[in-house]
Amino acid sequence: MPRYRLTFEYDGTPFRGWQRQPGQVSVQAAVEEALQRLTGEAAELVGAGRTDAGVHALAQVAHADLRRPWAVERIVAGLNAQLRPLPVACLDARAAAEGFHARFDAVRRRYVYRILNRRPPPALEVNRCWHVPQPLDAEQMHEAAQALVGRHNFTSYRSSECQAPSPVKTLDRLHVQRRGEWITIRLAARSFLHHQVRNIVGTLRLVGEAKVDLDHPRRVLDARDRALAGQTAPAAGLYLEGVDYP
Amino acid sequence: MPRYRLTFEYDGTPFRGWQRQPGQVSVQAAVEEALQRLTGEAAELVGAGRTDAGVHALAQVAHADLRRPWAVERIVAGLNAQLRPLPVACLDARAAAEGFHARFDAVRRRYVYRILNRRPPPALEVNRCWHVPQPLDAEQMHEAAQALVGRHNFTSYRSSECQAPSPVKTLDRLHVQRRGEWITIRLAARSFLHHQVRNIVGTLRLVGEAKVDLDHPRRVLDARDRALAGQTAPAAGLYLEGVDYP
Repeated sequence: MPRYRLTFEYDGTPFRGWQRQPGQVSVQAAVEEALQRLTGEAAELVGAGRTDAGVHALAQVAHADLRRPWAVERIVAGLNAQLRPLPVACLDARAAAEGFHARFDAVRRRYVYRILNRRPPPALEVNRCWHVPQPLDAEQMHEAAQALVGRHNFTSYRSSECQAPSPVKTLDRLHVQRRGEWITIRLAARSFLHHQVRNIVGTLRLVGEAKVDLDHPRRVLDARDRALAGQTAPAAGLYLEGVDYP
Repeated sequence: MPRYRLTFEYDGTPFRGWQRQPGQVSVQAAVEEALQRLTGEAAELVGAGRTDAGVHALAQVAHADLRRPWAVERIVAGLNAQLRPLPVACLDARAAAEGFHARFDAVRRRYVYRILNRRPPPALEVNRCWHVPQPLDAEQMHEAAQALVGRHNFTSYRSSECQAPSPVKTLDRLHVQRRGEWITIRLAARSFLHHQVRNIVGTLRLVGEAKVDLDHPRRVLDARDRALAGQTAPAAGLYLEGVDYP
């Protein structure tokens, strides 16, 4: 059976996350159903990242096996026609090597987190950002964040429901930048723990508000105690920006 | 009565435009009602630009007279509390000179039009752009657009319902730029005719697709015949970016 690698953009707002769950609206189920309407066959989709409820994707990657070969342009156009009016778009489809695995072969996942940092609430970017009315110092956030880059035990930054066998992860990049009212936080790693990005962002917010000092994110890391990290930043600000393969 | 100058951001999608109309949901009416709930008095809002149904604003400016003086921070915070959950945010309030008029004193209105130029439909920017699947050459669009800059009779680019006394307008700026999948068209003028921006964009799209040559927008202008311009580009891609005063 030919295997295809598919790329999706989605607005996470109406979904209970990527992962199919009984009785819940998920991106995976929506795409699998669209794929079945298109091809007439049931196929399982395996995604690179299991985004949580409300989390968006600019380029989520998944693979699926189809019984017969398809022209990739027909998959893209057909899926987009079948997905309408759901806020999910298939950006790309390509034939994949037989053993390709969207989740296990990924060497880097890139996330971006967007904070709207102004007093008035968003009107145009509702459900697309975290609205933080208190002034944040993005340079301080960036400086403090660098202590988290590298290979560390991220126990303090994982959710209590995280099922990863090990809390040790290597954060390749953590970059905080302000542009006008917007603060953008970019992260990259081979893989992340559950809520790791959102707990890091919640902790960096405390630095940005000067409620804690620059060493705080590092001290939280060293303590290996989830209770010390900041709040879990809201899902609406988080985007899976891309997934890289060798 | 003290006069205030107010700045608003809004998502135009759920509104029949800025202007209050009997039996219709308008931004003006929504803000006037929020203002009345806040202050306990009825006040009329005069906006700088009457954006059409579905057109957004990053910074619409309006003025209103209140019976007694208010701290401007209280107006902003109070209006935003009263506007919730409508997608309208008050960004700024300031005391204005007695004779200040948001519409008549404006010396420049700036609009931005956003085209998503890729085959797949938008998932995250639904109602926030014009989705054009055919490849567009933004450099050609920019070059052709320059013939419209300056003082001209824009009869060909105005709507048949336009009520402006004269079709002569001075376009100060018309700039087309591509950044990845996005094409951004920026326009500035003291004032615009009804549908002028959207008709210009619809005509430039034809240039971008190479369906017409570079001289086409100018020939349409010279013909003074609305039937020759391209389609009226959809409202969802248009944003009132700002209004300038002396």
